[in-house]
This record gives sequence, structure tokens and C-alpha cells, in this order.
Amino acid sequence: MARQLFRDAMLQTITSVLDGFGLLVFATSGALVASRKQMDIVGFALLGTVTGIGGGTLRDVLLGLTPVFWIQTPATLVICVAVSCLVFFTAHIPQSRLRLLLWFDAIGLALFAVTGAERALLAGAGPVAAVTMGVITATFGGIIRDVLGGESPMILAHEIYVTAALLGAAVFIGCVTAGVPHEVALISGFLAGFALRGAALHFGWSLPRYRPRAERE
Amino acid sequence: MARQLFRDAMLQTITSVLDGFGLLVFATSGALVASRKQMDIVGFALLGTVTGIGGGTLRDVLLGLTPVFWIQTPATLVICVAVSCLVFFTAHIPQSRLRLLLWFDAIGLALFAVTGAERALLAGAGPVAAVTMGVITATFGGIIRDVLGGESPMILAHEIYVTAALLGAAVFIGCVTAGVPHEVALISGFLAGFALRGAALHFGWSLPRYRPRAERE
Amino acid sequence: MARQLFRDAMLQTITSVLDGFGLLVFATSGALVASRKQMDIVGFALLGTVTGIGGGTLRDVLLGLTPVFWIQTPATLVICVAVSCLVFFTAHIPQSRLRLLLWFDAIGLALFAVTGAERALLAGAGPVAAVTMGVITATFGGIIRDVLGGESPMILAHEIYVTAALLGAAVFIGCVTAGVPHEVALISGFLAGFALRGAALHFGWSLPRYRPRAERE
Repeated sequence: MARQLFRDAMLQTITSVLDGFGLLVFATSGALVASRKQMDIVGFALLGTVTGIGGGTLRDVLLGLTPVFWIQTPATLVICVAVSCLVFFTAHIPQSRLRLLLWFDAIGLALFAVTGAERALLAGAGPVAAVTMGVITATFGGIIRDVLGGESPMILAHEIYVTAALLGAAVFIGCVTAGVPHEVALISGFLAGFALRGAALHFGWSLPRYRPRAERE
Repeated sequence: MARQLFRDAMLQTITSVLDGFGLLVFATSGALVASRKQMDIVGFALLGTVTGIGGGTLRDVLLGLTPVFWIQTPATLVICVAVSCLVFFTAHIPQSRLRLLLWFDAIGLALFAVTGAERALLAGAGPVAAVTMGVITATFGGIIRDVLGGESPMILAHEIYVTAALLGAAVFIGCVTAGVPHEVALISGFLAGFALRGAALHFGWSLPRYRPRAERE
Repeated sequence: MARQLFRDAMLQTITSVLDGFGLLVFATSGALVASRKQMDIVGFALLGTVTGIGGGTLRDVLLGLTPVFWIQTPATLVICVAVSCLVFFTAHIPQSRLRLLLWFDAIGLALFAVTGAERALLAGAGPVAAVTMGVITATFGGIIRDVLGGESPMILAHEIYVTAALLGAAVFIGCVTAGVPHEVALISGFLAGFALRGAALHFGWSLPRYRPRAERE
């Protein structure tokens, strides 16, 4: 009994830590886009916050879990704004802000794919819907970031991107369905998603693209 | 009594068939945009699914019918993905993918205008709100498709587009208000919307555009 | 007791008037963008309506106040469409439609920042979330307007924009927290937001922008 309570508390902690970390890295990625566009500090705060909370907000809205999460935990907003302001004063230090942006985005992608799928499961979604929700949670923040920041959406990059979110969410849901302990499933899903996205970034992996008529003949 | 049950079941069937068909044609239109952008198969699945479920998802969110429909019927997602993959392997066959895209979009537009308005009615909306919801359901999937696919949104085309959705939804609501049997109203609305959009496509119809000051004088 | 009822009724009236006025000016701004793009009358109605109701719709969805407001009060939609049609026939009269657009947008921004924050308060949000909701309500309609109309989003303008919404919402919430009478808080928040945005427009004020590495050394 006490052991069960302890496990539940630990699980809750793991999810919160993963979710909080996803928030941090996505907020940073949003602020980095703001730095590439030479925005002012309010633009940093805006793009950082929208990127950090965007995916989870859409997830909550689609699942009907309203008011959405950051209305109940305003600390979320404060963290996003604080991180964005920090980036405003330090983003000139790294050699390549684009490289940094891509890797932060990759970590956030893998984290939110897993925690998004988990929140959907808890809300009663089946496996297919939960995987989809993981992909949505992982990619939506980055989509708004890129649309508002006037960058070409990373989701359309020819490197493997959505596929990595899909893999992460699917591995997590597969593990849960197979009866693997929940915390192991969370970590496995994250590692699978991040490994694939990281490899795609490092090696420039991509899937074969559609070839129109002329090229086939 | 038995007759009433039979009628309800038939009506339900008609709506489901129209809705399912709308899903198919919109998913196809999304995959066709992916083919025009030479995406990979995941891009096809993504754009097809988003286009297929986009309008209905926004409709459910605005009406407060959450979790949204595809969380309860994940088959929806499977169908969208399957259709998109099919397009990936066959889209080189038709002579003009753009022509095909426009006509599939037109069918989806007319179908969702009617089923969107109906779902709003069932959720308790009045006639004006129901017509609006029909237009939103009909056009939103295509908007996301075009924004994500980097095409100029069809909603802004100078051919008659939103007007056709408006007509379809208004004819349906008009028929229902006038006491016409529900299934006749559904079909009439669809035919009206599709006829107008089809004629606009075929004859290049458009409404008069706004003329600024210089041209007036 | 009677006095309390009178005050409540008056407060309700003030909020409704502010909200209705925000709807009008934002719908006008949407129709003005349509005029700049030489759309047809349906395009005017669409862009006007989306701009008018966009911010409040997102606010209601995030707070879980569904069906969203205009489903219950379809008059809202009728007003937006009517205003947009009026603009279609009169927009050639003013000398500069862009100037007019900027000022109408400024009024709407300040109005919705305050009424959005208030609706969030009533729905039980804390001060940080309420200010955020004010900013979202104030800016989202304009974002959709600019994205659909193919204009560069005003939210990314280097003039002070989001900052003005933030100030308006924060002044309102600050006043409420400090125990200032509600109607005074509403008006103060509006005036603060509008004054800042107006000054930024008039004097071309902007915040310092991020300077990348090269420029620092």
C-alpha cells in the first residue's frame, strides 16, 4: 500500500519533470527564433511562451481538459517568460543559434510526444488517439513558433521530424500496452524519439520523397 | 414507432455516409497537396489527416463537444492515413493533380457545410450560428492544408468558394426550418453547395471585387 | 440591496458596451484588410467576422466556456457581417485605409485586453493567467486577420503592440486587486493600453531589439 503510494508519487514526479523540461527547451527554442528575427524582449517572451505552452494547450482543448493547464498553474507562464528573457541577454554567446535551436527543439519534441500521449491515455483515449495526441502535443508549439516567427515550419523539413514524434509516442504506448512499468515506458519512448530525431539531424536522414509522373517515366 | 426508429437509423446512416465521404475526399485533397510539394509518406499522412479531420475538430471544440470526435472513433484516423498512403503510390497516374485536388476539395466543401451545420443544430445552436458552423467545418480543414502545405489558401481564391459553403449550409438550414424531411434537407444542401462551387470552378465564376478610390474616379 | 443590483447591472452594461465596441472596431479592421487585398464582399464578411470574434472565441475555448459566446448570441455574427458590408461600400472614402486600420486595431486591442482579462477573472483564473488571457483575446483576432489576409502579422511589428495589450490587462487586474471599483478598473485599463499603443503609433515608439554577436563586438 505504502509502496503503491510511493510508486504513484514517483511516477507523477517523473512526468512533471519531463513536462517541465519540455517546457523549458521549447520556450528556449521559441526565444531563439525571436533572436534570429531580432525581436524586442516582449517578442522573445511571446514566442517563448507560445512555443512552450502551445502543444499542451491544443492537447487539453482537444481532450476537453479545460480550463487548460496553464490557467491552473500560472507558474508555467512565469517560467516561460523568465527563460525567454534569459535568452534575450545570452543568445549572442553560442556560435550557432540555429544549431542550438534544432537540438532544443529535438529534446522538446521527444519529451512532449511521450507526455502528450500519457495525458491522452489518462483522459481515456485509446492507443491510436493517444499516439496522435502525442504527435500533436510535440509538434504544435513548434508550428506556431515557426508561423509567427516567419520561419519555414520545421514540420515540413525533409529531415525526419514528425516520424520521430510518432516513434516516441508509439514506443511509449506500445510499452504501456505490453505491461512494461510506466516510468520505463516514459523513458523508453523519450529515448526512441530523441534518438531518431537526433540521428536525422546528425546524419541528415530523410524518407524517400514523392516522385511526380515525369520523373517516373 | 418501429417506423420512427427506422427513420432515425436511416437518417443517422445518411449523415455518417456523407461525413465519411467528406473525410475521404478531404484527406485525398490533403495528400494531393503533399504530392505537389513532393513530401515523404509521413508528410502525406499528416497533411491528409489534418485536412480530413480539421474542420470537424474545430467544430467540436467551438461547440464544446469534447473530447473531439476522432478521439472516440480512432478508425477516422486510420482511414485518413490509409487514403493518404494510397495517394502517395498513385498520385502520378492522373493527368492533372491540381484539377483533381480542386474537385475533391469541392465535394468535401459541400459535404462538410451540411454535416457541420447539422451537428451544430443537434448541439442546440440557432440557425445563424449553425450556418456559420457549417461554413467553418467546410473551410477550416482546407485552410490548415494550404497553410501547412505552403499553398495560397483556397479560401482567398477569387472564385466563389466560401459562398458555396454558405449556400449549402443555408439551404440545409432553410429546408429544416421549413419542415422538409431531414434527409431531403441534407441532400438538397449538399447539391446546392456543390453545384455552385462546381459551376464556379467550371465557368470561372467570381463575385465583383472591391475597387479602391483611384479606380472609382 | 437595490443599489447593489443597480451597480451590478451598470457594470454588466459597461462590459457589454466595451465588448460590443471592440467587436465593431475589430470587424472594421478586418474588412479594411479585405479592402487592401481587393476581395469580394464575402471575403469582407469573412475577414471582418473572423477578426471580430477570433480573440473572444479562443478565450472561451481556453477557459472551457463552450459553446463559445457567438453560438449563444448570434447577433454578434450579424453585426460583424453588417459592418463588413458597410466597409465594402465606403472604404474608398478615407484618404488612408492603412492609417484607419491601425487606429481601429489599436482601439480593439485596448478594449479586448481589458474585457478578456475580466472574463478570465469571472471564470476563476488567477491574476497572471487573467493578464495572459487579456493579451490573447486582444491579439488573436488580429493575428488570424493578418495571416488569412496575407499581411505581415501586426503582432510582430517593431512598434509597441503586445506590450500595450499587456499594460492594459495588467492595469485592469492591478486595479481590481487593489480594490478599485470595477468600472473604474475597466476604464483605467482601457485608457492605459490605448494611450501606450496610440503613442507608439503616433511617435513610432519601439523597444530595443536583440543585437546578434557581430554587432556587439
